[in-house]
Amino acid sequence: MKKIEHLGIAVHDLEVSNALFEKILGVPHYKIEEVASEGVKTSFFKAGPNKIELLQALDDNSPVAKFLAKRGEGVHHIAFAVDDIVAEIERLTHEGFTVLNKIPKKGADNKLVAFLHPKGTNGVLIELCQEDPLSKLESRKE
Amino acid sequence: MKKIEHLGIAVHDLEVSNALFEKILGVPHYKIEEVASEGVKTSFFKAGPNKIELLQALDDNSPVAKFLAKRGEGVHHIAFAVDDIVAEIERLTHEGFTVLNKIPKKGADNKLVAFLHPKGTNGVLIELCQEDPLSKLESRKE
Repeated sequence: MKKIEHLGIAVHDLEVSNALFEKILGVPHYKIEEVASEGVKTSFFKAGPNKIELLQALDDNSPVAKFLAKRGEGVHHIAFAVDDIVAEIERLTHEGFTVLNKIPKKGADNKLVAFLHPKGTNGVLIELCQEDPLSKLESRKE
Repeated sequence: MKKIEHLGIAVHDLEVSNALFEKILGVPHYKIEEVASEGVKTSFFKAGPNKIELLQALDDNSPVAKFLAKRGEGVHHIAFAVDDIVAEIERLTHEGFTVLNKIPKKGADNKLVAFLHPKGTNGVLIELCQEDPLSKLESRKE
């Protein structure tokens, strides 16, 4: 893994938590993004080479809503940056880990992402992420 | 905050989890260290500019033992690197956060550390850490 790309934190109210994390980190969030496929509204902060992603559920069926109901606010996942997500999915599957989506899907912040089942990783939801090479084309269309 | 210095993960069995995280991260742990004052045995892995710290309780009174009993294995804390821990403690106290130890204490991996109470930080136990300037002298004595 190249680095911790970001840490995802589940929160009840994005606006309240944006103000809170601006105080903690000493910088404002630099982006808000909805990821409808995951049922979340997210905000991102920079901490040097790393990011903090706050996650608010868009509806009660969102995995983040279920997480909040069960565990309360707190760390939801760790995302590691990888150079080749397809190769990493194959390597980790071969090592015996359960990859929740073997075909990488589009995540927030122009990333292709895949998740490892936390039952096999000491209770930690681990995300692999790689910059989506097509994201540059999409931003040109906007 | 300069970066995520490390992410602390509470585990039941350090030996089992060292083997597991070696597979996930693709590198072996580079150090094992007991921190008697915190009641933990730790191991460290590198992920580029960041580290993963696995934490096993040394006894039932360890805060990590209590965390494991209540929450099970998973992310225990996030540590942010800071340039001036004394100034950061003062800044965050002024912002209304509860700093659990206002005098930085010695943590693992040659760091001076302080913790913010998770009740004020969306359930996330946040550690501030700064390289201990005296740690070089201590390593010479060994």
